[in-house]
Amino acid sequence: MTPRPPLRCLRCTRPAEGFDGCRACAAEGIGVNTMPPLADLAGVDLAAYPGGPWGLPTALPVSGPPVTLGEGNTPCIRLRMDPDPAQDGHPVGELWLKYEGGNPTGSHKDRAMAVGVAAAVAAGADTVVAASSGNAGAAAAAYAARAGLRCVVFTNEAVPAGLRAQIDALGAERRVHPGTTGERNSAMARAVEEHHWYPLTSYSSPSPGGNPYANEGYKSVAYELARDFSGRRLDAVVVPTSRADLLAGIGRGFRELAAAGLMAQEPRLVAAEPSASAPFTAALRRPDRAEQERTRVTHGPTVAFSLGEERPCWQGLDALWRSAGSAVAADDDAIMAEHRRLAAEGLILEPSSAVGSAVARDLARTPGALVVAIGTATGLKGLAG
Amino acid sequence: MTPRPPLRCLRCTRPAEGFDGCRACAAEGIGVNTMPPLADLAGVDLAAYPGGPWGLPTALPVSGPPVTLGEGNTPCIRLRMDPDPAQDGHPVGELWLKYEGGNPTGSHKDRAMAVGVAAAVAAGADTVVAASSGNAGAAAAAYAARAGLRCVVFTNEAVPAGLRAQIDALGAERRVHPGTTGERNSAMARAVEEHHWYPLTSYSSPSPGGNPYANEGYKSVAYELARDFSGRRLDAVVVPTSRADLLAGIGRGFRELAAAGLMAQEPRLVAAEPSASAPFTAALRRPDRAEQERTRVTHGPTVAFSLGEERPCWQGLDALWRSAGSAVAADDDAIMAEHRRLAAEGLILEPSSAVGSAVARDLARTPGALVVAIGTATGLKGLAG
Ligand SMILES: [Zn+2]
Ligand SMILES: [Zn+2]
Repeated sequence: MTPRPPLRCLRCTRPAEGFDGCRACAAEGIGVNTMPPLADLAGVDLAAYPGGPWGLPTALPVSGPPVTLGEGNTPCIRLRMDPDPAQDGHPVGELWLKYEGGNPTGSHKDRAMAVGVAAAVAAGADTVVAASSGNAGAAAAAYAARAGLRCVVFTNEAVPAGLRAQIDALGAERRVHPGTTGERNSAMARAVEEHHWYPLTSYSSPSPGGNPYANEGYKSVAYELARDFSGRRLDAVVVPTSRADLLAGIGRGFRELAAAGLMAQEPRLVAAEPSASAPFTAALRRPDRAEQERTRVTHGPTVAFSLGEERPCWQGLDALWRSAGSAVAADDDAIMAEHRRLAAEGLILEPSSAVGSAVARDLARTPGALVVAIGTATGLKGLAG
Repeated sequence: MTPRPPLRCLRCTRPAEGFDGCRACAAEGIGVNTMPPLADLAGVDLAAYPGGPWGLPTALPVSGPPVTLGEGNTPCIRLRMDPDPAQDGHPVGELWLKYEGGNPTGSHKDRAMAVGVAAAVAAGADTVVAASSGNAGAAAAAYAARAGLRCVVFTNEAVPAGLRAQIDALGAERRVHPGTTGERNSAMARAVEEHHWYPLTSYSSPSPGGNPYANEGYKSVAYELARDFSGRRLDAVVVPTSRADLLAGIGRGFRELAAAGLMAQEPRLVAAEPSASAPFTAALRRPDRAEQERTRVTHGPTVAFSLGEERPCWQGLDALWRSAGSAVAADDDAIMAEHRRLAAEGLILEPSSAVGSAVARDLARTPGALVVAIGTATGLKGLAG
């Protein structure tokens, strides 16, 4: 078993062992992830960075061999911006989409699962387990297959047909838990404790966010953006947000870059949420941080089925606070309108991904602004049937 | 209208105007594409090449603005090679998969359609047309949408549901031609002549292969391989082959690289075909080239539905002859076994794509060999439903 860097609670800095977040903060009702220290990027030549988590392995808290399917290094595509009719053809800023659907299983989750499965191998695990009714399950299945590990995916009954078929084709065991998220979490916690299965997603409540080692894979999104927009000032990076694993990972990447002098100024991070389930948007409306971290919202149905939590994971609040960021909600009509706008420009994304560019499009109306939306997943899985 | 470089028949060197191949060679019963001159890559710094067709725009015969969705620069993934049981654990070579499913619409066709649609824009067209019951139609639809052009896709009734939904979502007009390929070709020829629609795929018989400008987009696969395997000798590149657009394009890219001193030795090209429809395999069994170019086979049903022609397009023979290459057929059982083997390693490809690595896997058994298979398309479109 390879020694791992120590994990510490992002909020109270207490050390932790497991992957179920900080228990002290959970006792206060706040889900906080425990993370390894930031990496030191001093001396890194960003221009030579080939992209992906394994393009900069020294920034990862895993010392074993890489597990890779060629994830990362996704393209950044400049989107058309219609002139603002309300402003009579006033100039507008630039809107870019970082298309994560180009990853091997079709979503950003590949960046995390590549690293998480490598961590599982380094820890000597023979089975990995993920609770997911979406892209995380497919990514876990693919990387487990790649590494020769067994993979169990806990799902609920709402898994779309395309994703279900993908998980099955990749040889993972799908276990349907018709009960509540709490019951599914308990089943996963038992499996982790009794069978020593390696957990790739979170299984405690309130959720702290995903496996800390896996999440470090998301830092590569920030490195790629810094490389690709080298010399330009990125104003905002807009991230479709649920448990904020991607948001927090991108934020950590930018902080590492800034600390090493590889980026003059960290961009503002923006959490994009469906209105039906928008804990970060609700939280940031509250006056002080103590209230923000205790926000709870009701979670309604939305076309953005991948997204939706009742509470803001603390790692996301942390990322927004540190970058002077914000959270914006878009309703289902706006999400589907953006989904159609992207298709009219040649891009088919999952509706949950269109939340990002729906929100980013408004921000990019400011003349001179340079805004990037993360397009988290391909829409191809949902097309047939 | 931007002046275009002259097109000449690859076989008889006669100049040509349209995109329906060389008429003189067609009169002999041989389908030959007419192509622009090879590009001069002297002075190109391959290490700095960012990938994709537009990463080296001077190598393209289009002088208008790029049309791009971030295509190309796909990952190359080393596959596991089982030790050869017949040889008692004898060492084996290296097998790599270049995963073209990571392209924006999920297949290698994006490289061609990016350039073909840019050529259509430069030619002043308002409508592009493609005959395809597969990935080419989806790619044409996406890039036409990106460029703001109208797109018409002629299909037959056999279009898989996922692809049909993709073409529709991208806003293309789908016209189902239940008749023969010949009738579909005639309808497309009429549209090109009467309405001046810009043809992105071929529409004459015997087929010469696709639009010459579009096809130049495939050269970027060769440039990326030369960059990524810099300093190593690539023994063979195995390409799933139907009309040999991709095969011929890759071959042209390697020839340009070799001519500019950017590659010491061009790899051997290998056409991988389904046994049910294997004109190149049949052709290369014949003793002389005059007979090879007049080969005709029957075309049976196969799981590799994207592939299958009755005659070897001459551009493919040319590529195989020039690289001292070969053609190998795999039957449906072998194709599906390879499809499952790839899924067991985390990769879901279209069955037609698995033909390539099925054939390449055998070639890579030679100790010391370095073999790359092109994995042409994602299998995600066929999963649901
Ligand atoms: Zn804590
Ligand atoms: Zn000719």
